[in-house]
Parts: sequence; structure tokens; C-alpha cells
Amino acid sequence: METKNSASDAPELAEPYLRAVLDTAGLAVEYVRAEGNTLFQRGEDGGEIPVADFAGGYGSVLLGHNHPAIVARARELLAAGSPVHAQFSRHPYANELAAELNRIIHRELGDQEPYFAIFANTGAEAVEAAIKHAELDRGMRVAALGARVAEEIGAARAAVAEGTAALSARTRARFGAAAGEGRPAALEAVLAGLERANAGQLERPPLFLALERGFHGKLGTSVQLTHNEHYRTPFKSLGAQARFVPHGRPDVLKEVYAQERGVLLSLELTDGQVEVVEREFPVFCAFLVEPVQGEGGIHVLGAEFAQEIQRFCAEIDCPVVVDEIQSGMGRTGALLSSSQVGLRGDYYTLAKALGGGIAKTSVMLVREARYRREFEIVHSSTFAKDSFSCEIARTVLALLEADGQAAYRRATERGRALRAELESVQAEFPDQVLAVRGRGLMLGMEFRDQSQADSEILRELATSGLFGYFLAGLLLREYRVRTFPTASAVNTLRFEPSLQLADDEIALLGAGLRELCRVLRAQDGARLTVPAAP
Amino acid sequence: METKNSASDAPELAEPYLRAVLDTAGLAVEYVRAEGNTLFQRGEDGGEIPVADFAGGYGSVLLGHNHPAIVARARELLAAGSPVHAQFSRHPYANELAAELNRIIHRELGDQEPYFAIFANTGAEAVEAAIKHAELDRGMRVAALGARVAEEIGAARAAVAEGTAALSARTRARFGAAAGEGRPAALEAVLAGLERANAGQLERPPLFLALERGFHGKLGTSVQLTHNEHYRTPFKSLGAQARFVPHGRPDVLKEVYAQERGVLLSLELTDGQVEVVEREFPVFCAFLVEPVQGEGGIHVLGAEFAQEIQRFCAEIDCPVVVDEIQSGMGRTGALLSSSQVGLRGDYYTLAKALGGGIAKTSVMLVREARYRREFEIVHSSTFAKDSFSCEIARTVLALLEADGQAAYRRATERGRALRAELESVQAEFPDQVLAVRGRGLMLGMEFRDQSQADSEILRELATSGLFGYFLAGLLLREYRVRTFPTASAVNTLRFEPSLQLADDEIALLGAGLRELCRVLRAQDGARLTVPAAP
Repeated sequence: METKNSASDAPELAEPYLRAVLDTAGLAVEYVRAEGNTLFQRGEDGGEIPVADFAGGYGSVLLGHNHPAIVARARELLAAGSPVHAQFSRHPYANELAAELNRIIHRELGDQEPYFAIFANTGAEAVEAAIKHAELDRGMRVAALGARVAEEIGAARAAVAEGTAALSARTRARFGAAAGEGRPAALEAVLAGLERANAGQLERPPLFLALERGFHGKLGTSVQLTHNEHYRTPFKSLGAQARFVPHGRPDVLKEVYAQERGVLLSLELTDGQVEVVEREFPVFCAFLVEPVQGEGGIHVLGAEFAQEIQRFCAEIDCPVVVDEIQSGMGRTGALLSSSQVGLRGDYYTLAKALGGGIAKTSVMLVREARYRREFEIVHSSTFAKDSFSCEIARTVLALLEADGQAAYRRATERGRALRAELESVQAEFPDQVLAVRGRGLMLGMEFRDQSQADSEILRELATSGLFGYFLAGLLLREYRVRTFPTASAVNTLRFEPSLQLADDEIALLGAGLRELCRVLRAQDGARLTVPAAP
Repeated sequence: METKNSASDAPELAEPYLRAVLDTAGLAVEYVRAEGNTLFQRGEDGGEIPVADFAGGYGSVLLGHNHPAIVARARELLAAGSPVHAQFSRHPYANELAAELNRIIHRELGDQEPYFAIFANTGAEAVEAAIKHAELDRGMRVAALGARVAEEIGAARAAVAEGTAALSARTRARFGAAAGEGRPAALEAVLAGLERANAGQLERPPLFLALERGFHGKLGTSVQLTHNEHYRTPFKSLGAQARFVPHGRPDVLKEVYAQERGVLLSLELTDGQVEVVEREFPVFCAFLVEPVQGEGGIHVLGAEFAQEIQRFCAEIDCPVVVDEIQSGMGRTGALLSSSQVGLRGDYYTLAKALGGGIAKTSVMLVREARYRREFEIVHSSTFAKDSFSCEIARTVLALLEADGQAAYRRATERGRALRAELESVQAEFPDQVLAVRGRGLMLGMEFRDQSQADSEILRELATSGLFGYFLAGLLLREYRVRTFPTASAVNTLRFEPSLQLADDEIALLGAGLRELCRVLRAQDGARLTVPAAP
């Protein structure tokens, strides 16, 4: 089963270091064709070698590689001269796609509130759009609050000056205006005190909340909300501030709130008395949540904690951004994985499988109650909202909804079959497999840490930061099974195959994982490394 | 010439406000097909109405809409089951695309230094990647400098402690260590003084430089480097800091440097004397430059100022990021418009036309001397570096290079013909046209401000922030010519047609612009507004 690489003499200019790293684990193979759940390598004899694809384009090919209906639609659009580049005109296809997304979301949420759609090109771009929208919204709320407080203070000031109201004893005391002091002097002391207290609040930067192990993209701002410090900290000076919260810890939510909340002080007239009141300052810009953490190790957000987040964010008036980029579009048995745990997003981001494995498209949805139409004027993208991507995404939705929504049921059924196999491996090798996690066709298997292993090779691989890539290398070399670790938790292999996943592919994966466990049990580290060329 | 809109009963969920704004100017038409330099509307009778496209997908369709060779290649890739989603494997197509870009760039620069390629999906993503790479690089330089200074200070400290060197009189004086003071006390005073001086420097955030009127995208970080305050300031709390510099003002460069530069103080041993030395602190992260400002009003970077920027950045060791997203890929007569003014980028960003009007792709190139291979491990994108986009981009390069690079010559020749027409309009209506600017097929016509016009309608339109959109509306309604103002300078109409631009289309545009000038001269504001439906 030798494979050959074409054009291997060309200098490496597109990420040579990554290539070298992949080579080390035996993963730098070339795929020449893709179909259904299969990627094909070229063998030495020129024939194709099939590889069962459990990586699935990091979640993008739920419907399979080059799904015939999607390919046919793409070819049809190309043949018809679809107006791909028609920016700033009517885009009925975008509108119809938004309407269809709304129809499905309304069904899943049991609610009719419209979600407005801002299209983008990648998952990370959709997250950036959500962040920008949330900050635009927060800025407008800050401005409105500032105006309200100024008006309240102005009214109180005028009333005191005219003598129609008096500073209450408590108000005087709070700002050190002695009881006997004359009206103008006391008023000045109170106003100066308010200004001191409020100074700085209006300029406070937004604070984002996100979950530990969360992944929301790698663009300049979105990377700040991605928990993995290797991705984030080199760029920490670039952008937004976030506090990361662990799963299942409502107490931490309350603690962060207590530490970070802000108030503006204002004045209120009650029965001719001027009292100091607090107005909550909107410092929390958005809470970003993945229903299933894709890069963080396939951790599922529990229904109970989802409800805690929902309640907490409602109380502090912080929008919930549900990042469904990897979990959504049917992979876990519903368009919105979050709808399965009763979480309702103020925003949703969808991408990956939305493009059907061919188009690059994403969408950020905002519920009407939170939507700021001004955003449409300040945000745009040359490539977004194009006819080609929108029509492909409509085809994807049609395929998901066809036959009475059979695709969601199939994701659930295939997920169960795959999970059963993974759990049987775990039952057989509890000494090697720490956990099997996930939902639907978004599953993960966490292996035990080998950093204290007897085998020196295993210890080295375990501490290289690339452990799971070596596990994936063995599966690819010996079983022609493609999988990867999750990016931020490399002891966890992820399985995100397509709906076409066949029973014999599940069995093949099972055989590979069992062999992997035997290799680890035997501490046969050499088996994980790439054999030297003959 | 009535047109109809399909599906007009569907609720508007994809940017309804933008739709309404476009409707006001008569621009919310639906295009049903695109070919060459033409977009087609559907008429009331069901027939197609051609519109000459001078917007050109904001620069994306230099080779024309749905170029037959590109469409054929796309259909071929789809039919062959191209492995679009094969992340973390060998991507020879990406490597070959990078090699071809290098070949052309080396020809244009007359230099053989390799540029490494990081692929992304959109122009803005390429800019984000450049920003992130520059900051990773800066962080590594900061760390190296910090280590160097710590080592130098440590060596000096040891030498003084051992008595093999003495603090110079100047060093003692600088930190208030009296001449008579004992060795240990004086040393402590100097070290404390150094620590005070250096405190904070190491934590200083990066500072970016960019040109006034520059546009570099609208993602969370890139938007901070886009000069237009409407796009930028609502999100100012999100990210990076930039100083904007006007064109042609080397004095401002020096001023910004003087205000913003930082140093770390260190110690150096010379002839047994310990002297304080300054080590330049890398606070300047990158200087972003567009060779022709697309959204800022089609302003061309002059060769002389380009040289000033080059020298300045070399002196302060600040990488130059040349943003060729709109100007590059042949539009001005070269792959790199900047090569025409002798500017050499440490980084380049290319997008728009790189995708041939069909694919969504972009690339960020970094010269070897600046490249940090570590970036390949911390940055990635699910959709980027895919076989489909890379193969389409290779087809684009092949088309540009075909027939002895005829495409670049054609861009220059067609640009001259178009410019001649624009200049003849200007000569006829100097009272209405302030300037004609640009290079190759990237041209702009700036109209005089109408905010003090006699016509009340014109005054209103001029102060609406949408003036150029109303000019574009008349051209579309009455001449079936599609153009737009530049996004940040709405008195300037932009013309970025494809290479297929025909003489009769130039004449049609000329006729439309003359009529527009007559309307403005006659102060006939009503002609710019959309006629009420009959």
C-alpha cells in the first residue's frame, strides 16, 4: 500500500513547517479525489486507495464529499452564468435562504421571532460579525444610558436650583455635603461626586464571556475568545478582553459578574427628595457558547448549565451568541444543536456544512429584539451574500429537510451506531480510553495521558503537543482511516463523518482503535512513528 | 425598460435596511446572469436587459464575469470530485500556486527572495493573517530584546560586583548614584533606575501605521486599520491601535516616530566602564499601504512617497504590508501594482480577482527574511488552501500570463482608453468634475461637492452620505451602466471594469457621465431621485 506524492520537487512555499510536522506523524499524504465518506490517495500503481474519512472537513461535509445533488446544482449555476459578483443589488437568493433558516429555527425553538441574517464567508468571519454587532449594540446602549443619566441629573439639578426639590440627607451624606451647607454648595458637591464616580465607566472596554475550552475562530478578534492560549496569547495585545468560564459552574458566572459589573450613578426625584440611584452599565458585550465544543475536546454543554447561562445572561442583559459552526446544520440531529438543550441564542453563527462541502459561506443571525439595522451600513464583505453560495446553501437545507427531515434522524441513528462501537472499544480498553463523548455525528474519544509512560518514545510523543496526530498517523497508515485530534485537546480523537457513514467503516475504525489501544497497552511507541523509507 | 423583481413578497430578513437604502437610489435591481463585462436584469417581457458593469465586483472580475476558461475549470474540478475538504494533508496545488506567485513577483521585483504563502478565504482574512503574523513576529522580537537586555545587564552587574568593571561617572549621574557612594549601593541605584525606565515598555501594545483614506477590511482587527471613522470607531474598543498618516508627508512619518518610539535601557561594558545604552523597542508592528486606495477615493501612492515609506520602515525595522487586494492581480498593468512605484512589500495581501470571479480565496505572502514558521502552527482556516480555490487561482494566473503576459498590457491599454474618455468629460465639465484619478483599470472620477448647491434636493442628497449612490442610480436607470462610489469617499465614482471592456461601453459611460454633469449643472436634483411608480 505504498503511496506516491506528485510534484514533490517543487520548493515548499505554502506552510513548509506544517508539512514537516504532518510528515513526522505520517499524515502528509495527498488526496486526489473525494466522494461520499471517502477520500482517495493515489497508489504507486496509479490506482486509487480509499480512505474512510472521519475528519469530514472539520464538520463541513456532513452530506458527504461532492454530494451529487450539490455538485449538480453547482455545475448548473456555473453553466447558467450565475451573477456571483453583484454586490449592492437585490439578492433574493440570500433573502430566501434567510427565510428558510428562519422557518427551521422557528420549528426547533417553537417561537416565531424573526432572526435577521448577515452573511459572511467563513465561520470565523461570522463570529467577527457577531462580535462587531454586539459591540455596536452595546455602544448604542451605552450612549442611551449616558443620555438618560445626563437627563436625570439635569432634571434633579434644575429642581434643586428652582427649589422644587431638595437633596435627601442620604444623598448629602454620600458625597460629603454637610447637612447645614447651603443649597448651591451642596448641589455642587453632589454633582462633583457623581462625576467622579461615573468617570471612566463610559470609556470601559467591552468584556466578553466565553467558556473554557471554547473555540470561535482565529481572526484578530475572534481568536481572543478562543480559549487555547497557544492560539490566543501571542495576539493578546490586538484586541478584545474575555473572561473564560468553566462548564457547569454557575457560581463562577456570579463571581465574574460581581468582579466586573459596572454602574453609573444617577439622581432620581422621589416626593421632592433627590436620591442617588444606580444604573447598570452594559459592560458585558456577549457570551459565546458552543453547544458541543469541537476543538476543545468534544465536550457537550449540559442542559442544566445551558439554562443557567440563559438565565444569567437575561438577568444581566448580555446577549448569548451560540456558535453552531461545527455542531449545527444537522450534525447532532437538529439544525441547531443548542435547541436540543433548550438554549435559545440571541445570535447564532453557522458555517462549515452550510456550504455543502463546496461553497464557502457562513451566516450570523440576530434575533429581532437585539437587531441593529445600522449594522448593515457599517459592515460588508465583497465575497459574501453571493448567488453561488446562497444557492448551494439552499440546496443543503433542502437536502436536510427532504423526506420528512430524514437527514437529522440519520445523523442521530448513525451517531448511535458509531458511539456504540466507540464505547465497546472503551469497555475493552478502559486502561487506555478515558472517555467517549459527544452527540450525534460529533463524537470524541479521549485517550489517557502517556506523559509518564514506560516507553520513552510514548513519553516524547505525549509531551510534543502532537500526541493525537501520531495516533491518527497509525490509523491512516495501517487502517486507511482519517481522523484528527481536536485542536486544543490533542489526547482526544474526533469523529465527524458524513451521513453516508457505512457499518463497515465503523467496524474498520473500531478495528483500528482496538489495535491502537493494544499498541499503547504494549507501550510499543515505535509503532506510532513513521517507518523509515526502505 | 421596466424591470421586475422576483419573490418580492418574501419578508426581508437579509439586510432589509440596506435594501431600502439601495431602493432610495434606484440601485436595488436583481441581476439574473453575468457574462464578460455585462450583468443582466430581467425585463417585464421576460427578456434580458444588459448592464455594462464598471463596478466589476469591487475589483474581483478583472477577467470578466464567468470567464469561459475559469467556468470550464470549475466544472471540471466538480466533475472530477476534487478533494475540497482535505485539511492537514499535502496540498500540492497550494504549493504550486505559491510557486507561480513567487515566479511572477520575482520577475516584477527583480529579486529572488522567496515569499511564503498563508492562504485565506477573503481579503479581510488575508489582512488579519498579516496583522497576526506581524504581531507574532513583533512579540518574538520583543522577547529576544528583553532577553538580550537582561543578559547585558546581568553581565554588567556581575562585572561590577566582581570589580572587573566600574560604573562610569555618567551612568552614576544618570541614576542619582553619588560619585562617592559605595559600589553595591551605586549598583543597586542604577539597576533600580533601569527597571523604572524599562517598566511598562515590555507590555506596550503594538502600534500600527496606515495611510489616511486607507481601507483594509472590516473584520474585528482589520477594521481598526481602515481609516473611515464610520466603519472603525464603533468598534474602537475591540482592538489594535493605529496612527494614520496622510499621503506625501514624510514629515508626519518622522513626527509619529518621535512621538511613539520606545527604547529599553541596557548596560554596556566599554574599557572597563559600564555605560547606559538605548536599545530600540519594537513598538511599530506593521505599516499598511495600498498602492491605489480603492475605497478611499482612488488615490494613487506616488513613487516618491513610496520610497520615503520604504526607507522609513527599513530604518525603524517595521515591516511594510502592501495591501494589493483591489489593486493587484493585473488590474493596473502588473501583478503587483506596488512594483510600478518601486515599493517592495515585506508582506503582500492578494484576494478579489485571485478567485477569478468564482472562488473565494486570498493569500498573505511574507518574505523569507521576515517569515516566522511558528505561524503555521497557531493560524489556520477550515476553508482555506482547498483544492478548488487553489486550482481556480492557478487558472487565473495562467490567463494573466498567457500570450506573453498580454493581460497586463490589455489592462494598461483599456485603462488608457477609459481614462481618455473620463478626462474628456472632465474637460467638458470642469465645473462639475474635480478630478480623474487612478491607474490602469482602477479609475475614479471625483465630483464637486453639492452641499451648498442651489437645488434643495441636491443639497439633501449631498449631505446624506450617499451622494455617489444617487449619481450611480441615474447611470443605471437611464444608461444601464453599473458603477458605485468608493465606500469612504462618496463623491468619487469608481470604474473597475474587466479586460473585456469594449469601446462602445466606454462611449456609453461617457454619454451617461456627460448627462450626469448636465443634470448637476442645471441643478436638476429631481433627476437623481427615483421616479414614483406610475
